[in-house]
Amino acid sequence: MANPATVPVLDYLARQQARHVDELREFLSIPSVSALAQHRHDVRRAAEWLSGRLARAGIDSVRIDDTGGHPVVFARTPLAPGRPTVLVYGHYDVQPVDPVSQWISPPFQPEVRDNVLYARGASDDKGQLFMHVIAAEAWLKTGTLPVNLAFLFEGEEEIGSPHLGDYLRAHRSELSADVAVISDTPMFGDEEPAICYGLRGLVTLEVSVIGPFQDLHSGVHGGAVMNPAHALAELLASLHDQSGRVAVDGFYDDVLPLSEEERQLFQRLPFDVEAYQNELRVPALVGEAGFTVLERLWTRPTLDVNGMWAGFTGEGQKTIIPACAHAKISCRLVPQQDPERIAQLVESHLRKHCPPGVRLDIVRGAGSPAHLTPLDHPAVKAAEAAIEAVFKRPAAHIRMGGSIPVVADFSQTLNVPTVLLGFALPNENFHAPNEHFHLVNFHRGAQTIAILWEKLGAAYV
Amino acid sequence: MANPATVPVLDYLARQQARHVDELREFLSIPSVSALAQHRHDVRRAAEWLSGRLARAGIDSVRIDDTGGHPVVFARTPLAPGRPTVLVYGHYDVQPVDPVSQWISPPFQPEVRDNVLYARGASDDKGQLFMHVIAAEAWLKTGTLPVNLAFLFEGEEEIGSPHLGDYLRAHRSELSADVAVISDTPMFGDEEPAICYGLRGLVTLEVSVIGPFQDLHSGVHGGAVMNPAHALAELLASLHDQSGRVAVDGFYDDVLPLSEEERQLFQRLPFDVEAYQNELRVPALVGEAGFTVLERLWTRPTLDVNGMWAGFTGEGQKTIIPACAHAKISCRLVPQQDPERIAQLVESHLRKHCPPGVRLDIVRGAGSPAHLTPLDHPAVKAAEAAIEAVFKRPAAHIRMGGSIPVVADFSQTLNVPTVLLGFALPNENFHAPNEHFHLVNFHRGAQTIAILWEKLGAAYV
Repeated sequence: MANPATVPVLDYLARQQARHVDELREFLSIPSVSALAQHRHDVRRAAEWLSGRLARAGIDSVRIDDTGGHPVVFARTPLAPGRPTVLVYGHYDVQPVDPVSQWISPPFQPEVRDNVLYARGASDDKGQLFMHVIAAEAWLKTGTLPVNLAFLFEGEEEIGSPHLGDYLRAHRSELSADVAVISDTPMFGDEEPAICYGLRGLVTLEVSVIGPFQDLHSGVHGGAVMNPAHALAELLASLHDQSGRVAVDGFYDDVLPLSEEERQLFQRLPFDVEAYQNELRVPALVGEAGFTVLERLWTRPTLDVNGMWAGFTGEGQKTIIPACAHAKISCRLVPQQDPERIAQLVESHLRKHCPPGVRLDIVRGAGSPAHLTPLDHPAVKAAEAAIEAVFKRPAAHIRMGGSIPVVADFSQTLNVPTVLLGFALPNENFHAPNEHFHLVNFHRGAQTIAILWEKLGAAYV
Repeated sequence: MANPATVPVLDYLARQQARHVDELREFLSIPSVSALAQHRHDVRRAAEWLSGRLARAGIDSVRIDDTGGHPVVFARTPLAPGRPTVLVYGHYDVQPVDPVSQWISPPFQPEVRDNVLYARGASDDKGQLFMHVIAAEAWLKTGTLPVNLAFLFEGEEEIGSPHLGDYLRAHRSELSADVAVISDTPMFGDEEPAICYGLRGLVTLEVSVIGPFQDLHSGVHGGAVMNPAHALAELLASLHDQSGRVAVDGFYDDVLPLSEEERQLFQRLPFDVEAYQNELRVPALVGEAGFTVLERLWTRPTLDVNGMWAGFTGEGQKTIIPACAHAKISCRLVPQQDPERIAQLVESHLRKHCPPGVRLDIVRGAGSPAHLTPLDHPAVKAAEAAIEAVFKRPAAHIRMGGSIPVVADFSQTLNVPTVLLGFALPNENFHAPNEHFHLVNFHRGAQTIAILWEKLGAAYV
């Protein structure tokens, strides 16, 4: 049941829809790719655009904080005693865009087709964070915010948030809050709004196999030297066994087993395995024996090669033995797995299995543990009510295979519980060509968030 | 002992050395990379330069013949009855240049440092074919050529000579000759001129592993789909066994065993295994048990990955499951192995070992069989005498691990025996960055060739 105070707020959002879409397109046209040095200036431009927009929303305390990497945009509404404080987190950086040739419209020229907005960052996460900005604006322009809001928008999520931990520690008191809300997760389906209570963690490694001092003529030298591409293939092949399990010693040691309650919760979700396989257009789904597809995606750890390269990859033939071969590897982690320990186990495995005739160079990247929020947490209950008010149906409770490192940081550093309340759809191509966001969910998401402030305000009275 | 008729010829070559190097630099500055469509026009420019130079050498019958691909430059001296006809083959196309950042001087800006000429094609094969042009010129300007010469210079050697077979069949009568001479092989060492009597063959394949319809978010989808990079690694790893042998069923079935005579010939060659390892800067040499390094390089077949790629290979992280993964594979073949059969065996192996959840696409490339010339052939004897006259030491008899498809074609289509008489050094970086040619051997090579014409003329009287 909607509280009367929310009527003018929702009315404001309804009247401003066209403007909000135009503004989002402007935001999305800034190529804030955090992984690429050439876009450093664009990342800052996105931060500046966002801070300007927060100020125009009526929030007078807005800052761009340097972090040593890409900046944090921090903003807060005046502290009203007696109201709970909500920490809103989002990220304004985006993934790289290659293979760029597969985009139907250019990734940084946002285009609306059939009420769907196409652009890199549309759903992950610029479009979703922007819902919070306009929900706050709607309250500020039409009534009294039922909560205190602190906005923490970072520019390094897609590169593993290397500076966010330090930032949180340095600003611990400013960031103190009753609850954190993040919209960087999907709904479960087109009409299936969801609260995500679990995320996988992540740890990355880059492996280089180094052979001869330069590329060699494969006729002159073939047969007497270890080909680094062969060595890398052998190493990568050794990382999984024939049943699809990760073959690294100790990899599963600390995995929290799946509870019978969760198993049943997932079985009740309307998940069509065949439709999923068809959607991905693969001849078969694979994975660990003994687990359903959702269980594999949400509750089991993985090891994936994200990229590999060696030798001549251009048009035609170049008959060489490559001087070196490289792979980017990442592991998705589940609760109780320690990123550092997993990276070390993988590194040990690679060193132990390295064939003769080549050298190994391994660089470990950033890591973050997995996350779980109790299903009976009061903020989860407020989110359930807000979803039901807008969508006219109960929220699904899901976990997710992706990783949002900040969720673990909020828990560990700030001792703030997090509600993950996202409005993207699962197949909106985050990290892939033709990323998009259904505008109907953009608008419903902003409404839900506006109501969530009211429900949270009431919950903490 | 040099024949008096060669004195003015050698004198001419000695006087023109500076000019000949300048001309070679001009030739090398044309980027005639046959593998890349963007260089199609440059390949033709190189053909035009070469035909112009042949005309200036005094050869009045010079043509550029279209082949459907890159052209052939064909030239011949007037047919003098009673003299043997020598077919000179070379190729004016060159390998691609990447990784271009590793070149000390740009690959198509030829530079002489310490009497060594650096450029793509310096030794493979523009520099070597040019020795034949100036040796012929020296005879034509100072005396009477003791042989009839036919020059066949192609522009597609580095892409497997796809049109040369047709060309040879179409011009069979024009190309009829007593012997073919090719300078596209190395000396055995700095002061070790060699006649190469054996070459490995070559066959290529390109393998694509095709998974989901596009790159997928490795968090959202990781654990339920076969990662094409994993599948490719598994496939490539399956191609060799732990002892370094190719693990494809039937791969060694037709291999001509090494004779005891050759084994002993190779053992007499001054080959320093440790120096070879140090030169390549690898921690260990590897290869098939039961064979020396030279035997592995010259007489055993191989399978090498020349390039592979999948997913994100740029700076930073992109946590995806790649939509597909690719590898370029080539096999070096030895006498009695049939390229088509080997390609089919490799393809069958890959299809048999392909894991579930992905599709395979395999494209077979051009192939050519290996080659052996009898050591007691009369043209080999003439080459021995020419080498001894210039280098003051006996020629080594070697085989080589590389592939020159035309040698098999000459034997099969034209029934012409071939003498391989090269003056590059083994470590002059053919196919690699900083390819070069020692100018002392460029000049000695031209002298040896000039004397070879005289010896061959005498041998066939």
